[in-house]
Amino acid sequence: MQRKIVRFVEEENLFYRDEKILVAVSGGVDSVVLLDLLCKMEVECGVAHCNFHLRDEESDGDFEFVKNLAKEKGLAFYSIDFDTKKYAAENKISIEMAARDLRYNWFEQVREASEYKYIAVGHHADDVAETVLINLARGTGIHGLSGIKPKLGKIVRPLLPFPRKQLLEYAKKNSIDFREDRTNAETDYVRNKIRHQIMPVLEEINPAIRATMTENVQRFREVEQIYNKVIEQNRLHLVFTRENQLLISIPKLKELLAPVSHLYELLSPYGFHHRDVRKIAESIHGISGKLFSSASHQLLRDREYLILTEISEGNNNEYLIADEEVKLKLPVELKISFLDRTPGFQFPNSTKIACFDANKLQFPLQLRKWKEGDYFHPIGMKGKKKISDFFIDQKFSLQEKENTWLLLSGTKIVWVVGHRMDDRFKITGNTTKIYRLELE
Amino acid sequence: MQRKIVRFVEEENLFYRDEKILVAVSGGVDSVVLLDLLCKMEVECGVAHCNFHLRDEESDGDFEFVKNLAKEKGLAFYSIDFDTKKYAAENKISIEMAARDLRYNWFEQVREASEYKYIAVGHHADDVAETVLINLARGTGIHGLSGIKPKLGKIVRPLLPFPRKQLLEYAKKNSIDFREDRTNAETDYVRNKIRHQIMPVLEEINPAIRATMTENVQRFREVEQIYNKVIEQNRLHLVFTRENQLLISIPKLKELLAPVSHLYELLSPYGFHHRDVRKIAESIHGISGKLFSSASHQLLRDREYLILTEISEGNNNEYLIADEEVKLKLPVELKISFLDRTPGFQFPNSTKIACFDANKLQFPLQLRKWKEGDYFHPIGMKGKKKISDFFIDQKFSLQEKENTWLLLSGTKIVWVVGHRMDDRFKITGNTTKIYRLELE
Repeated sequence: MQRKIVRFVEEENLFYRDEKILVAVSGGVDSVVLLDLLCKMEVECGVAHCNFHLRDEESDGDFEFVKNLAKEKGLAFYSIDFDTKKYAAENKISIEMAARDLRYNWFEQVREASEYKYIAVGHHADDVAETVLINLARGTGIHGLSGIKPKLGKIVRPLLPFPRKQLLEYAKKNSIDFREDRTNAETDYVRNKIRHQIMPVLEEINPAIRATMTENVQRFREVEQIYNKVIEQNRLHLVFTRENQLLISIPKLKELLAPVSHLYELLSPYGFHHRDVRKIAESIHGISGKLFSSASHQLLRDREYLILTEISEGNNNEYLIADEEVKLKLPVELKISFLDRTPGFQFPNSTKIACFDANKLQFPLQLRKWKEGDYFHPIGMKGKKKISDFFIDQKFSLQEKENTWLLLSGTKIVWVVGHRMDDRFKITGNTTKIYRLELE
Repeated sequence: MQRKIVRFVEEENLFYRDEKILVAVSGGVDSVVLLDLLCKMEVECGVAHCNFHLRDEESDGDFEFVKNLAKEKGLAFYSIDFDTKKYAAENKISIEMAARDLRYNWFEQVREASEYKYIAVGHHADDVAETVLINLARGTGIHGLSGIKPKLGKIVRPLLPFPRKQLLEYAKKNSIDFREDRTNAETDYVRNKIRHQIMPVLEEINPAIRATMTENVQRFREVEQIYNKVIEQNRLHLVFTRENQLLISIPKLKELLAPVSHLYELLSPYGFHHRDVRKIAESIHGISGKLFSSASHQLLRDREYLILTEISEGNNNEYLIADEEVKLKLPVELKISFLDRTPGFQFPNSTKIACFDANKLQFPLQLRKWKEGDYFHPIGMKGKKKISDFFIDQKFSLQEKENTWLLLSGTKIVWVVGHRMDDRFKITGNTTKIYRLELE
């Protein structure tokens, strides 16, 4: 085992033996064996222990155990107390997630302050196999299969090739004491189902299941590398930004071998899930005008581009409107149509309906609330007027102001929705095509 | 469900509705529901049924059931009897594999003879999930994750998006009779472990596990497409053939992002397993001379290339020897070294040792048995001699002839191993570097 860990450290380029390593030690068999092996490799180690206070006396016992272990070995010891449950409640995350956040943030602080090169953690082959199965069960792409990385940033995982059983045997053979870790047994329902109900059955099918899964993951990691490189290369041709918008070329997307994957990698950072992305990918073969949204962003399927914009906080939402006949259910409901200019065309005489010269508009249009400095050219008037002055003329209440939407073409206001059209976009003798909006 | 199957058939481009489809009907719920749905889509169907005679009366009952079903629906009916156990024993394969071989071969015959466009089979979402898990448990790359394809050659699988439960519900709702299929319960140990012990636990974790796995597989399929394309593109630069050899450029391999994957895709068709390939990939960073073999092929890590050659049947094996100091354990054991030509150099006087002018040799050398027409220039003689005549001179028995190995440089014989060197490669006054072989 000592030989194998040395080879793994070299192969995966985890660290050099003269580099200082901060070892995360919970007191469980994995982290205690890790510490032992690194000490035998004569690596200069420090010991970091978090007390998450999840199991009262037991947690305190772990702390004492690790403290003594560091003392026996003559190693620097760092520890911290966390109120994990409070942190989880405050941040509305699971206990597991809270413990992870707290732990890694603190490790990094200690590492930097005390000049360690890396943080070593005790993940092993069982963790690799379990993580792959968890991701599969929850739904995943290739990223969820390439498993726990041997090295990621400042974190290194020298035990990754070893199944837990081997760690237990090593501990027994070398008379290494450790603490039973029951944190997982209490907090992580899914992982425990996988560990205690699924892995044993897989082991009956293949007794070397953990080694096989580790090998699978190595293979998937190469596949992921190829995949990432191709996606990155294509991203350059596919995407550009315009002001606060991200534009994705639809014709170029259509040429791609794997459009859904490309879209997923582009859009998932903006909160779009895989199912949304599948629908967006389907929309590129349909008509323009469809709107999709995540918690934070809105995506419009326009003619040539998919246009991604951020949804602002509170009342400052912005929406895009494509040049399509469509019924939109935005905060205002609009029925949109294109009409030919016929001799009998009647100007509507309701402020709920607006008609414009379609050829003067620049699509997609934008729908948003008013901002300080906005102005327009009220139809029938010469010159421009500030929106704020228009509101005063109309004797709008504060609430009325806040509920009023503006329709824009580029940076120009086309319509104070439901109130007044703009003179610059009005229908004239030259108009051939009319863009009609009706407020429902 | 009818709407969803129509959409799936269209999306995956499985077939057009005016094309004739041969439906594989076992009598189980999946194939019976498949037939029902295709008939409702007004596709012109034929029914094909195999009796594998694995469950005696029950198998005959299945046959009668399917025959009547075809009759009721007024469809063409094709059936065949197989002695599956005999076929499996004769071909040394599992019953499952035998049934698969027999079935698909016969379907294809019927399809061609009766002019059906495609063969439709009843694989469903449960099969997709199970197959992914089986492959993971046994060890797999990305190919084993992209699951059962909706369309492969002439086989189409219209039920792939539906979990078995949904098929059962459809059958119940539409009063569709079917036969309990117990073939799997008896023959496929691994699949049953997955189906009955693992899938239910995954379902507790994620009630929509089958839909999730189907979605995972769709994502993996795109990843696989990207992967395949990159491997194919790089193959052109990486590989060329020379006579009966396949040469893989080591420098080019080293430049690649994912060398193991590339090597795996190149070498697995020649019987190399993933573990062999990992070792071969490691060897490109080491010295030349290493030999690897699969059941059918030998791969030499030479200087610039990995050289793949077929191992011929029986006694006609051929081995390559690189220009490296090495101890080779081929059918003959050879210790190989390079010496500088020093003034005190002594010609060995054992026929077990041979020395040649290294600069006259063309590496890799080849080691093989003699063939009719082989000749060489025995050292100390003028002119050439047939190997067969040399054997007669030496009064070799048939067995001695068959056990004699020849060492070749290009097409020229360098050494009748253990017996006589060739004059053309001998050490002369101009020799600076000596190639020495010692038979152990």
